[in-house]
Amino acid sequence: MAEHITPRSKNYSDWYIDIVLKAKLADYSPVKGCMVIRPRGYALWERMQRALDDMFKETGHTNAYFPLLIPESFIHKEAEHIEGFSPELAVVTHGGGEELEEPLVLRPTSETIIWSMYKKWIQSYRDLPLLINQWANVLRWEKRTRLFLRTSEFLWQEGHTAHADKEEAQQETLRMLEVYRRFAEDYMAMPVLTGAKSESEKFAGAVTTYSIEAMMQDRKALQAGTSHFLGQNFAKAFEVTFQNTEGNLDHVWATSWGVSTRLVGALIMTHSDDKGLVLPPKLASTEVAIVPIFKNATRDQVMAFAEKVESRLTGRFRTVLDRDEQNSPGWKFAEWEMVGVPVRVEIGPRDMEKDMVVLVRRDTGEKTQVPSDQVAEQVAELLESIQKNLFERALAFREENTRKISNYQDFTGYFEGDGGFVYASWCGSAECEAKVKEDTRATIRVIPFDQPRDPGSCVVCGKPAAQVAVFAKSY
Amino acid sequence: MAEHITPRSKNYSDWYIDIVLKAKLADYSPVKGCMVIRPRGYALWERMQRALDDMFKETGHTNAYFPLLIPESFIHKEAEHIEGFSPELAVVTHGGGEELEEPLVLRPTSETIIWSMYKKWIQSYRDLPLLINQWANVLRWEKRTRLFLRTSEFLWQEGHTAHADKEEAQQETLRMLEVYRRFAEDYMAMPVLTGAKSESEKFAGAVTTYSIEAMMQDRKALQAGTSHFLGQNFAKAFEVTFQNTEGNLDHVWATSWGVSTRLVGALIMTHSDDKGLVLPPKLASTEVAIVPIFKNATRDQVMAFAEKVESRLTGRFRTVLDRDEQNSPGWKFAEWEMVGVPVRVEIGPRDMEKDMVVLVRRDTGEKTQVPSDQVAEQVAELLESIQKNLFERALAFREENTRKISNYQDFTGYFEGDGGFVYASWCGSAECEAKVKEDTRATIRVIPFDQPRDPGSCVVCGKPAAQVAVFAKSY
Repeated sequence: MAEHITPRSKNYSDWYIDIVLKAKLADYSPVKGCMVIRPRGYALWERMQRALDDMFKETGHTNAYFPLLIPESFIHKEAEHIEGFSPELAVVTHGGGEELEEPLVLRPTSETIIWSMYKKWIQSYRDLPLLINQWANVLRWEKRTRLFLRTSEFLWQEGHTAHADKEEAQQETLRMLEVYRRFAEDYMAMPVLTGAKSESEKFAGAVTTYSIEAMMQDRKALQAGTSHFLGQNFAKAFEVTFQNTEGNLDHVWATSWGVSTRLVGALIMTHSDDKGLVLPPKLASTEVAIVPIFKNATRDQVMAFAEKVESRLTGRFRTVLDRDEQNSPGWKFAEWEMVGVPVRVEIGPRDMEKDMVVLVRRDTGEKTQVPSDQVAEQVAELLESIQKNLFERALAFREENTRKISNYQDFTGYFEGDGGFVYASWCGSAECEAKVKEDTRATIRVIPFDQPRDPGSCVVCGKPAAQVAVFAKSY
Repeated sequence: MAEHITPRSKNYSDWYIDIVLKAKLADYSPVKGCMVIRPRGYALWERMQRALDDMFKETGHTNAYFPLLIPESFIHKEAEHIEGFSPELAVVTHGGGEELEEPLVLRPTSETIIWSMYKKWIQSYRDLPLLINQWANVLRWEKRTRLFLRTSEFLWQEGHTAHADKEEAQQETLRMLEVYRRFAEDYMAMPVLTGAKSESEKFAGAVTTYSIEAMMQDRKALQAGTSHFLGQNFAKAFEVTFQNTEGNLDHVWATSWGVSTRLVGALIMTHSDDKGLVLPPKLASTEVAIVPIFKNATRDQVMAFAEKVESRLTGRFRTVLDRDEQNSPGWKFAEWEMVGVPVRVEIGPRDMEKDMVVLVRRDTGEKTQVPSDQVAEQVAELLESIQKNLFERALAFREENTRKISNYQDFTGYFEGDGGFVYASWCGSAECEAKVKEDTRATIRVIPFDQPRDPGSCVVCGKPAAQVAVFAKSY
């Protein structure tokens, strides 16, 4: 029997950790708060990397690598930046057996070290735009950690771009937000809301932070990617100026944007079920598992037939033929379900006699018997259908759990119950935002781009509202 | 005019740094000993990564990720390991504003953290072999650094495998050495010697270290990759045992192997010249640069013709059409030579009239005029020829600068002169090895696999030799 997973209905949090550990995606490490990403989890990250990296390159970005170690004084140069990151820093004080003159922090993000280099590289408008991305590890000392979702060390990409004017930088910020939306929806099959963050939730050092937000199966929001318009904040802190086309000196405009291994956690919590992982085909390292079923008398024949089916699928799909002879078919089915392979092909002696195979889709469990010479076309259709169904199922779930609420009693009541996403009008004050958080633990996830002409009155204080915001409890 | 590069004949070391900085491959960072890998340098590393990663996967390995931070006590568990790495450690003493109970070191290599996890994952022979690779940054506090060749932080891959028996682990060690040899020769066009290291040069914690060694243009050796047979050393240090097929407990056998961003330095020093970078086509991110040459009167026609040529090349080759109109053709030729693009296509008004283009190969400077409708086939042939020629040229250079020497006076004299690689017989004693180093600064680079039946007498002490070794000065 495959290992037992806590059902979602019993304890969602235990269910999540069970999947991560039992599908061998990650493991706890000897260093508190740091995780080990095991091969099966890393393969998901690799597929995400490849797709995102292609999208970054299509939009004109190149990769580079900046040092992990940052002089502590750099972090202090941008006032909001140090305030935001100071409590989370890991500090190197000794190197090569000696105490360092100046302590070095492990990058929590790379704006400061990168802008110290941009100062050297940017002199004229001809050097702009500068469109650089980095794949790297970062460290943020976290008190409460959870595998993939929040760890002291994590892997991510961080784009850092420099522009000659404000509008171009703003466009870049939104372009990359759109790249993230497209990746989340097209590859991860995870519908997301997009919009701006409130002042209290924005990145330390940004003028405006935008994010993509997804609803997990426990109806909480997960911030899955952010794109920041940094204005001239870092250019001013690091004195990065350029000669513009009119021959005058001006400060450079900046953006930064990132997604991390947190996406692996988001993927799990969006689609998986009580049997284990459920993966969208585009990100599954194995798309099809062939499981032959035989007794001693039929072994050779069934295996030969399975190999013929394998040869029809290999090359076109990422296919594995399960050659294990130690475990029962039932155990093997459960294992393939646990690791989330989208399509399972079952082949038994009776199927073979009829020259048929059975296809089982992981998302719904539905079985269909198909002639073996049609297996490739049928698998292709199934994979497409699964990718689509996962997105639609997640979207329907989000819509079922989204409300428009204008009354504060209903608002707090909703979050006392199951909760979900709430569209509500907000006056824009930090006080009302803080009151919501205190009363319900919900926060503003995004202020959507589409706004009504008249947002009505604030759900908290009743004063005229500046906008409609989306509230939710979150990871 | 393109920027000036110090000629190799004047100062080889300045030449190297000039190329790295002026071709914008890397830059110095604000943190001593750490470098910034700029987009053009990183693109080389990315192409290397892709080729190597494919080779690792073909040989059955999967990628994973282990924490950067390692408890200091772990490094002490293997006696030779701590002795070798202790002077190079960077240490984190504070996290989240508090002093840590146990200091954490930044990984100088990951044997210890990985074997602490293998202890959790390996119980039975069924869990073996475990074939894991990691792409990561590592830190070794270096006193004297040089861009790409020796930096305090560098990027690398490290394979860490676990096996049920000694022979299988030894085979794996040699299999990966062969992967490195193949990569160096087939992709980098860099001939390498393979063999074992002497006791004094082996990895701290290994039973045997093997390496690939290349000759740079200053006739010094560069260790370009290592593969270690670790025996049961780390399994014993971390108490990693497994139940073997007979039901008995046994310690696991181990290997580790790695190459790093140092390879970018090796690539530069093997092929480049006084005009700048020379790149083997397989690793060049741009294979062909098209440079149109025109005056105002011919601009539109020449550009249209150049675009037609571009459309014949794009898709098949990584092609760039140089649309710069601010600089002279001569300046642009020099720029494309500086960045090492293997083939340049020059298109002027007179070529256009004859429906011809001029192809210039970067390795020899040779020019040929070809009909424009044959440009794709001609470029394909040229690229193949350049890849081959670079390897053969480097091999011929190594052979010209390799001697068999049996007399110690000739031996020291050779290293007082130009030096190079010397095959000489060695008794196997650490004393003779140390004497060579003191007298000549040369060290044993490898002990080749192919050995004569009778290695004769030691070049230093005259006693019967155990083997022939290759000596050279090195990076």
